[in-house]
Amino acid sequence: MASPEIDALTQALARLPGLGPRSARRAVLHLLKKREVALTPLLRALEQVNERLSVCSLCGNVDTSDPCAVCSDPRRDDRLLCVVEEVSDLWALDRSRLFPGRFHVLGGRLSALEGVRPEDLSIDRLIARVAGGGIDEVVLAMNATLEGQTTAHYLAERLEGHPVRITQLAHGLPVGGELDYLDEGTLAQALRARRPVA
Amino acid sequence: MASPEIDALTQALARLPGLGPRSARRAVLHLLKKREVALTPLLRALEQVNERLSVCSLCGNVDTSDPCAVCSDPRRDDRLLCVVEEVSDLWALDRSRLFPGRFHVLGGRLSALEGVRPEDLSIDRLIARVAGGGIDEVVLAMNATLEGQTTAHYLAERLEGHPVRITQLAHGLPVGGELDYLDEGTLAQALRARRPVA
Ligand SMILES: [Zn+2]
Ligand SMILES: [Zn+2]
Repeated sequence: MASPEIDALTQALARLPGLGPRSARRAVLHLLKKREVALTPLLRALEQVNERLSVCSLCGNVDTSDPCAVCSDPRRDDRLLCVVEEVSDLWALDRSRLFPGRFHVLGGRLSALEGVRPEDLSIDRLIARVAGGGIDEVVLAMNATLEGQTTAHYLAERLEGHPVRITQLAHGLPVGGELDYLDEGTLAQALRARRPVA
Repeated sequence: MASPEIDALTQALARLPGLGPRSARRAVLHLLKKREVALTPLLRALEQVNERLSVCSLCGNVDTSDPCAVCSDPRRDDRLLCVVEEVSDLWALDRSRLFPGRFHVLGGRLSALEGVRPEDLSIDRLIARVAGGGIDEVVLAMNATLEGQTTAHYLAERLEGHPVRITQLAHGLPVGGELDYLDEGTLAQALRARRPVA
């Protein structure tokens, strides 16, 4: 009996991770009842983001500018490059403020099961970045999953011969753990104890 | 390090009921990565709702039309009027498809603690609707809370003398229970066993 417009809004919200149909309905009611303080700000924020959204041509981050805010930040150390699987991993590490360098987003991980091959990830671009020089250390910050570690090993091989230290996050990561779900303490420990790839 | 636009979006989402900062961040990432299937539909739905949002001048429901979809539905029985505290209660009962009549939203409940008095609720409008005639039964569907029941008693007194049956939801409602949280089975039972106010 809700109008098609309200149904569409409920459905769009219900498809977000962490929201189901019930919480989406509550969110919609909140938006309708608190138009000025809830609906309008959300609408404006979405408009702004939608207008400016872009994928960073340097690192693969999504942001409202290209290069992204991380790549544009003059206080970051260009000699340190942290390679992550997904944008969510970049955000998790960035939130922790533990890593002072730059990032590179692969856009996934190698997976025989899902048919993800090296050419499906931004690996050539990573190699080109490293070959471009100015980088002392590449931190392979893959998830501690089988596929993440396979990807890290593959990258370590591809990076062999380049004059950079190749490190990976210490295996303080819980087995099967995904970066984006870890607390900062675990992330900090894993970063501090990062070690050269054999 | 996220852009101001993305921060604003995260904050707007984090203020929705059921979402915290963490789930808001995950939702934002989802929106950014799935622009076509997630961000665009949500933005369009919000625009539509924002453009058409109105409070129904008959019943107090919020909808994208005035009169609202419930008040405009020709299949509903004008002789039955269900009085609820909040729009969320109207939606809960409407979703259950158990009540074939019309609704009236008070906009709250009487509360000494919160200083809510009869003139703060749309009670005069309810009395006028009933006085206008054509209504056989007024169902007082207040929450089974102290304040809800106080409000129901007050309404029953105010409606005395009008040629209508005044009923209330059966006390199959769990004590302290709020309509919007109940399963349909409980709602169905409470509606079926509704009884005249003494
Ligand atoms: Zn970037
Ligand atoms: Zn209405």
